[in-house]
Amino acid sequence: MIYTCTLNPAIDLFVETDDLLPSKVNRTQSEDYQANGKGVNVSIILKKLGIRSTALGFKAGFTGAYIQDELQAMGIDTDFVEIDGVTRVNIFVHTGEQEYKIVNRGPKVDSNAYNEMIEKINSLPDQSTLFVSGSAPRGVDESIYKEIAKIAFDKQIDLILDISSEVLMDCLQYNPFLIKPNKEELAHFYGKEDLTEDDIIYYGHDLLDKGAKHVLISLGEDGAIYIDRDHLLKVSSPKGKVINTACAGDTMLAMFYQKIQAGFSVEDSLIYASAAGSSTAFSKGLSDLEDISELIKQINTIKLKGGKTNE
Amino acid sequence: MIYTCTLNPAIDLFVETDDLLPSKVNRTQSEDYQANGKGVNVSIILKKLGIRSTALGFKAGFTGAYIQDELQAMGIDTDFVEIDGVTRVNIFVHTGEQEYKIVNRGPKVDSNAYNEMIEKINSLPDQSTLFVSGSAPRGVDESIYKEIAKIAFDKQIDLILDISSEVLMDCLQYNPFLIKPNKEELAHFYGKEDLTEDDIIYYGHDLLDKGAKHVLISLGEDGAIYIDRDHLLKVSSPKGKVINTACAGDTMLAMFYQKIQAGFSVEDSLIYASAAGSSTAFSKGLSDLEDISELIKQINTIKLKGGKTNE
Repeated sequence: MIYTCTLNPAIDLFVETDDLLPSKVNRTQSEDYQANGKGVNVSIILKKLGIRSTALGFKAGFTGAYIQDELQAMGIDTDFVEIDGVTRVNIFVHTGEQEYKIVNRGPKVDSNAYNEMIEKINSLPDQSTLFVSGSAPRGVDESIYKEIAKIAFDKQIDLILDISSEVLMDCLQYNPFLIKPNKEELAHFYGKEDLTEDDIIYYGHDLLDKGAKHVLISLGEDGAIYIDRDHLLKVSSPKGKVINTACAGDTMLAMFYQKIQAGFSVEDSLIYASAAGSSTAFSKGLSDLEDISELIKQINTIKLKGGKTNE
Repeated sequence: MIYTCTLNPAIDLFVETDDLLPSKVNRTQSEDYQANGKGVNVSIILKKLGIRSTALGFKAGFTGAYIQDELQAMGIDTDFVEIDGVTRVNIFVHTGEQEYKIVNRGPKVDSNAYNEMIEKINSLPDQSTLFVSGSAPRGVDESIYKEIAKIAFDKQIDLILDISSEVLMDCLQYNPFLIKPNKEELAHFYGKEDLTEDDIIYYGHDLLDKGAKHVLISLGEDGAIYIDRDHLLKVSSPKGKVINTACAGDTMLAMFYQKIQAGFSVEDSLIYASAAGSSTAFSKGLSDLEDISELIKQINTIKLKGGKTNE
């Protein structure tokens, strides 16, 4: 059984307009509404890969109902906690030249809803898989990630954590199955401005030492570095016109998990994952994955050397 | 029986943010979702004044359902034609300094839905009242206003038209009960860049000659001019900080109609109408009308002189 959890989901509203100027009416040429949220995206990509999952999260109002309806229409099970307010609509305005991202806070979660969510996590079947992705809404302290990680540890749930919060470091003691920081997040966790490849390898191994079982560090257009006790690999990424990087990491993560579960080698899983992430980056929303077989031809993996001892 | 018709309703999403810059995440401090559309606004204001109406229009998807639900929750009856797609969300971004308005096109109406709307109008009770406000959606030619005006004429429906389209001029032969161009629209109808007060009086009388029964010309911060066969009046407007002019005209129109129907003099009805319009202009969304009794103290009407003979 696979679950995804999105604490602060969103509808992404993509619009195209010639200009975005103040004090005038900027009329758009196109508008597109997409159910979104990092865990929601993982559920959608998994579904496209033939894997059923249940999407958990907080939902509110007509926008939350829309996300639930959209997921169910795709054949994804949902088990949201209903809260007051309105699930946020984030806005992405593309002019000819620029992209403007307007990100709302979303509704506030009260303690009853918080407890209901924790109970849901507590009721998940032992030894299931749980993706927890994205930011915490208002009213939810980031320590919720640690609470979830402990529950996952106690119930032998494979926890896949993709969060920007430095609470991630406190979660490592509960041996998350896989974590997927990007390079900026990794730098932030260790209080650094920027990281060299050697730094990434060093800190990646430190995440293993602190308890993570597998570490996938996404590098945007530079691909990704994967580290576990038996592997230290870098995967390249294919060339293409980047339209939207927002959901690329979610797509990469879902594809990587699916391939590993399907018995592919780590190397091949990484190639598929890189192709999938890039495919979404080359699309307006989540990729339909139709170009994967073409993209993987451009991608390879190399074994890296290094580790904490090579500092 | 009172009906309002909004061919292309919208949800207005108001957000506040410090800045709106490209290529970065602009996080907002507040977000507010409001059912909108010019006819929808008239229904809401009428309801606040204790008058029940039925809102007609085209609605689509989860956003259209939200508008219908909101209206029903306010005690307003609805009779929308459901179409494919998603009713638009328009976005108003307030930074400290500026307002950015992003206006979407909304869904496309097909001929079946068009015919269904015409049938609904055709089935309205004789001698009822119909407000038709706002723009035509994709797939609907602006000649629909003329078609509706003819139906209203045949059925002795009091038609109140608030549209920017110059098709308004073709509707006059069907003797609309009241039309409410603003100064810019009036100038546009007559192919002028700008209008003096004398021009407004002249063209206002021309609208009467062409068939309109009553003409209310809104002048923004300068109030409004009202013209019928027995009146030529100018109403002033109160002072205040203008936050949002979008729904002021709808509020003014609904209040004017309600006061006239309640037997108030034209002069007093205009004073209430000006107060109500300004109250909305001073609010983030539609006014709650609580400041009306204060605002009317600042407003007066004067009799104007002139007409077509004074050209």
